[in-house]
Amino acid sequence: MTQLSRRKVFGLAGAGVALAGAGAAGAGLDRTLGGPASPAHTETVEFHGAHQAGIVTPAQEHLHFAALDVTTNDRAKLVALLRAWTDAARQMTAGREIGTGGAVDGSPAAPPGDTGEALELPASSLTLTIGFGPSLFDDRFGLAGLRPPALVDLPAFPRDKLDPARCGGDLCIQACANDPQVAVHAVRNLVRLGFGTTEVRWSQLGFGRSSSTSRSQTTPRNLFGFKDGTNNLKAEDTAALDQHVWVGAGDGSPWLTGGSYLVARRIRMHIETWDRTSLDEQEQVIGRAKGSGAPLGQSAEFDAADLHVRGEGGKLAIPEDAHVRLASAESQNGVRILRRGYNFVDGSDGVGHLEAGLFFLAFNRDPRTQFIPMQKSLAAHDRLMEYTQHTGSALFAVPPGVGPGGYWGETLFGQ
Amino acid sequence: MTQLSRRKVFGLAGAGVALAGAGAAGAGLDRTLGGPASPAHTETVEFHGAHQAGIVTPAQEHLHFAALDVTTNDRAKLVALLRAWTDAARQMTAGREIGTGGAVDGSPAAPPGDTGEALELPASSLTLTIGFGPSLFDDRFGLAGLRPPALVDLPAFPRDKLDPARCGGDLCIQACANDPQVAVHAVRNLVRLGFGTTEVRWSQLGFGRSSSTSRSQTTPRNLFGFKDGTNNLKAEDTAALDQHVWVGAGDGSPWLTGGSYLVARRIRMHIETWDRTSLDEQEQVIGRAKGSGAPLGQSAEFDAADLHVRGEGGKLAIPEDAHVRLASAESQNGVRILRRGYNFVDGSDGVGHLEAGLFFLAFNRDPRTQFIPMQKSLAAHDRLMEYTQHTGSALFAVPPGVGPGGYWGETLFGQ
Repeated sequence: MTQLSRRKVFGLAGAGVALAGAGAAGAGLDRTLGGPASPAHTETVEFHGAHQAGIVTPAQEHLHFAALDVTTNDRAKLVALLRAWTDAARQMTAGREIGTGGAVDGSPAAPPGDTGEALELPASSLTLTIGFGPSLFDDRFGLAGLRPPALVDLPAFPRDKLDPARCGGDLCIQACANDPQVAVHAVRNLVRLGFGTTEVRWSQLGFGRSSSTSRSQTTPRNLFGFKDGTNNLKAEDTAALDQHVWVGAGDGSPWLTGGSYLVARRIRMHIETWDRTSLDEQEQVIGRAKGSGAPLGQSAEFDAADLHVRGEGGKLAIPEDAHVRLASAESQNGVRILRRGYNFVDGSDGVGHLEAGLFFLAFNRDPRTQFIPMQKSLAAHDRLMEYTQHTGSALFAVPPGVGPGGYWGETLFGQ
Repeated sequence: MTQLSRRKVFGLAGAGVALAGAGAAGAGLDRTLGGPASPAHTETVEFHGAHQAGIVTPAQEHLHFAALDVTTNDRAKLVALLRAWTDAARQMTAGREIGTGGAVDGSPAAPPGDTGEALELPASSLTLTIGFGPSLFDDRFGLAGLRPPALVDLPAFPRDKLDPARCGGDLCIQACANDPQVAVHAVRNLVRLGFGTTEVRWSQLGFGRSSSTSRSQTTPRNLFGFKDGTNNLKAEDTAALDQHVWVGAGDGSPWLTGGSYLVARRIRMHIETWDRTSLDEQEQVIGRAKGSGAPLGQSAEFDAADLHVRGEGGKLAIPEDAHVRLASAESQNGVRILRRGYNFVDGSDGVGHLEAGLFFLAFNRDPRTQFIPMQKSLAAHDRLMEYTQHTGSALFAVPPGVGPGGYWGETLFGQ
């Protein structure tokens, strides 16, 4: 009933192929047997490195994000899972099936090692990035003394409308890929490996990356129709990344050196209200021209916003309460973050509106001095808040990357 | 504050460009200004034709499907909306903004004509397909006498677990594209045009087309990891399409000639249970080899399934209750349908499982003799039902295509 398929033979033959370079590079070899595939799909992103992939990697088109709770108190089981996850991530990010002995074409008496829906699909620039939530550092696993001081419980922000079912989590998995089926497959297979050890708490799909994270990318638009993330930190800004994103050796949590903090916020957008708002109002709220993306008072997208320039009648071109002004490094005492969010549409809300918005993801070096004060100020003053509602929230410590023999979390749990 | 952007100039210059050919052909010109785009993204699908696009069009990668209710009793308002929708669909499927006078760069005192999030994105093979539900043919619009006899209220099927909030609708919009943001943009802008006339009842996103509808496409995999739709009707089978998909002039509803009936079923898959099932069991349930997709007892995907071949001990290679056997034309008295569904993941279900499955879409000429008896038989006997749950359901009459001067529904409502 089962056969040695071409894929299988190919998979075995290709198993030793080395991956080329760091970042998006090399060709995904194993799962694709024919038919043209675009470069966005055939590229593989190197899994190993000083930092986890999926942070400064040029943002892929699709996201599946899952927050999980650990359902055991057995530290050894948790560590074994992190090791298994790391091995599976190595395989999947290289475009290979997971499981031993042939996975889908394995023993008829056992469940296949791989669930199969990504067979024939190339790696699609898949990255897998994990994080540890504050609740992991309770008394279950002996980690209480290792909780980083910056891994705080996020405070309540003005106008938060959080749904507890969309908040928190002991662990998170961020899967990004240029094919949603590849991202979904990866999360599902990690979740499956966690059966008996972890359980999905909440998960979120996203599309149409709402920020670019590299100068090689154009700026995408959010569901308000505006270019978003023009001033985002970029992979090329290595000095700024060291300053604003990567946890340093002197930051108080040696195990997290080379890691970061990931903030996840599910931001529902009231798009029907927005769509009935005049162009002028929309541009005043954002602080940019809708068509070109230029800061108000300037002429091109990448012109620097001048927060002091005034137009007719001496009025500030960028209003006091415009999003661009309030979110700017100038208004935020030089604070910057690396945004990596996605647009989402989760069907309808039952009263005639689309359940749509921005799944905000951002990496920063210390949320106490970066995300938290920034969000406090935005939540209190940003006019954009009139059109949005924060419905989910979580914070995770993102451990550093791993080498070929390592596993996710080894600096926390030990070799 | 608003400027004549490059895009705008380009848009105006390109407005008279004719679209090439039928099906996926021609290059999307207007919304893309630079950067490489894959053919899947730059292609446009001709909107006009004897049939609506989005039925035999090679299935695109992404879906946004919306069911709407009409909130007015004013027939003229409904007809005006259908005309406005048709004009907007002409623009959007050609990769253009909608709205008069420049849309996003229009009057600062008015809301932009286009919501903007698809600016710079190419047409991405966008198709828009609409349908009329049974409830439209009540006494509100004088259509009661024109309700097609085949547009029945679907019967309750064994094991249905329908959520009323995911069923029915006066109208539906099926948007398919190779970029989800383009599909979402299209639905959102039609919904917006309907403000005051229609309201979204439910909507569903999907990805990873779960069937191919053309011999030019490879067979995709569903979330059970199996190739799905190998034996689907294909665009190239024109005689079979005439027999099984397109409503004929003698079928009792002249206004629907050249149209079809669209069945939508949201099928939740219990993927965690499935994933714990042995390979042998999975293959017996489906009736195909998981790796190759070959019917059991055969060696290659496109080998014809032999329902009579027996293996070891005289056992039927394809079990009596296997999905492939029960869904086959041989078991269904020659009945065939055109499947065009999508995989979905709607986050998590709150008890640790992914809310995932298949959003089944199928076109057929007469659901009374095609979908309904087929589903009755599958619901009663198919072992696959143990792993699935039908949670949403709807049936729509899909009017024929329109010419350059026409509008959706003109054969029903009159010129």
